[in-house]
Amino acid sequence: MQKQIPKGKLLLIGGAEDKGKSTIVDIEGKNKQFEEFEILKGLLPEKKGKRILEIITTASQEPKEVMKTYQRAFKEIGFNHIGFISMENNPQARNPLWIKRINNAHAVLFAGGDQFRLSTILGNTDIIDVIMERYYKDPDFIVAGTSAGAMAAASLMIYEGQRNEAMLKNTVKVSSGLGFIDHCIIDTHFVKRGRFGRLVEALLMNPSCIGIGLGEDTALVIRKGNEAECKGSGMVVILDGRDISETNIAYAEPGTPLWAENLRVHILTKGNYFLLHERKFAASKKQLNKEKIGSKIIDKVKPDKIIIENGKKITKKKPKKAAKKRVKK
Amino acid sequence: MQKQIPKGKLLLIGGAEDKGKSTIVDIEGKNKQFEEFEILKGLLPEKKGKRILEIITTASQEPKEVMKTYQRAFKEIGFNHIGFISMENNPQARNPLWIKRINNAHAVLFAGGDQFRLSTILGNTDIIDVIMERYYKDPDFIVAGTSAGAMAAASLMIYEGQRNEAMLKNTVKVSSGLGFIDHCIIDTHFVKRGRFGRLVEALLMNPSCIGIGLGEDTALVIRKGNEAECKGSGMVVILDGRDISETNIAYAEPGTPLWAENLRVHILTKGNYFLLHERKFAASKKQLNKEKIGSKIIDKVKPDKIIIENGKKITKKKPKKAAKKRVKK
Repeated sequence: MQKQIPKGKLLLIGGAEDKGKSTIVDIEGKNKQFEEFEILKGLLPEKKGKRILEIITTASQEPKEVMKTYQRAFKEIGFNHIGFISMENNPQARNPLWIKRINNAHAVLFAGGDQFRLSTILGNTDIIDVIMERYYKDPDFIVAGTSAGAMAAASLMIYEGQRNEAMLKNTVKVSSGLGFIDHCIIDTHFVKRGRFGRLVEALLMNPSCIGIGLGEDTALVIRKGNEAECKGSGMVVILDGRDISETNIAYAEPGTPLWAENLRVHILTKGNYFLLHERKFAASKKQLNKEKIGSKIIDKVKPDKIIIENGKKITKKKPKKAAKKRVKK
Repeated sequence: MQKQIPKGKLLLIGGAEDKGKSTIVDIEGKNKQFEEFEILKGLLPEKKGKRILEIITTASQEPKEVMKTYQRAFKEIGFNHIGFISMENNPQARNPLWIKRINNAHAVLFAGGDQFRLSTILGNTDIIDVIMERYYKDPDFIVAGTSAGAMAAASLMIYEGQRNEAMLKNTVKVSSGLGFIDHCIIDTHFVKRGRFGRLVEALLMNPSCIGIGLGEDTALVIRKGNEAECKGSGMVVILDGRDISETNIAYAEPGTPLWAENLRVHILTKGNYFLLHERKFAASKKQLNKEKIGSKIIDKVKPDKIIIENGKKITKKKPKKAAKKRVKK
């Protein structure tokens, strides 16, 4: 069964996104491209009309402080209505009132905390089904997650993993996420918390995935479940294990260091793109469009005949038809 | 002019190496392959005989505490004599007494502190000339550096570079190191201090180099200026920029984020090797020897004839000589 292509947008945020005057982002004074509210503004609908955002605070056990900050920030950006939904257990996640509110919203934001709470309390519940349905069917709908909320967005999720000087086998623990996107493992606060090793370990364990390391105040906006655009003041580190030629992940003993050869890494900042299915980097929107066209027509092009003999490559061009004589009018 | 091949060993340590009971390495209880004194034991001579180690403490402004810890640790390992040389300015680095002591030692260790002190106080002085000469000529001589001492060992050295969520152009500053090895940029405390971004930036600025990120209590032993062996309880991250297809380093404005496509990364742990000139990873000593033989004989092998036609690869094997008929004895 092939999965449908979602019509809505997915916004994955690395945590600690700028919330205006109430918070200070470390990089604010240094990065000359810093823009206030850059990421949270991504939650505004593209068309005019209702601006109703529902924030799900299930990841946090004490969401009051977060609620206050978001309330202020989103009001400043220009939302008409911000709601908070705190579900503490599975039955609450089937409450028809919440379902109705989700159906009325144009965007949903999973706030930070503990991603394991998100996935275990909300996984396989009506509320996720409804969000999923709107995400797949409604081109104006936005699903967003920040910090734990972003980590839980993919089908696979890191729920535990200390930072060590080596990647010690079985340190990183992975379970099911909410499933808004497949074949990705998402990590957040990636730079500040030095999480390179833990994302590599998660990737070695799950080689069909791409590793996405989101810096703070940095995000990927994913369209059609594939086209990821980088936003914000930090960087996104993409790890692609496709070319890994050797690693000891399969046979290393628990608690011993892991190694790997030939990991491919891309570093994205604001304005860069990445095609998740094709695993292709694009520096700009223009290049992205070229990549997209390229991958569609590549099958139709008959290659020139290439002969490799004694290590030398000889390309035999297909003979072009003789150019027609141009006759002066 | 081609450089000579050094006969001695170079030991580059990521800092915070295990010093026995007096210090606790974070990973000690978790990594099942942890060995006490593993790295510092690498300073023992391979042959029996004099075990004289000189420790250069110039990088530190207050080396007394370090001296005490090293004194205890090296005594426990079995050194006959440990000396400390604290040079505070260039004239001291030309003192014939120090030169004599270096000539008498079998190993020199540059201790940690500020690498900029090391490179500016000791760069282009008699003491470095003498260490260099012994390193190139004496197969039993060991040059070692830990933390700042390792960072200063290469020809190029990072002397400044904060950790930010993005790599902001001109954040990382590079100057000349002591020059025991070329075409490398070495960073230390790599995991704990989250220095991935700063090493990538240094690499983008200096594309002919390999980036070496040494974890704590982790080291590379480099033989013949080329064959690097990983030791210790953490990991070494090798960054190779050879395949970088696009980056904005050349034209980005100062203070704006840098991006890069297609960085190649290897993660080494104890027992892995890396050939610095060939930029080749080898999982084990056995594989290393294969790589070394491989790179020598590769030119002599005539490849089979390969024809690529319409995207399909056809290999035409060279005809083997008809097998001789086996006659029963």
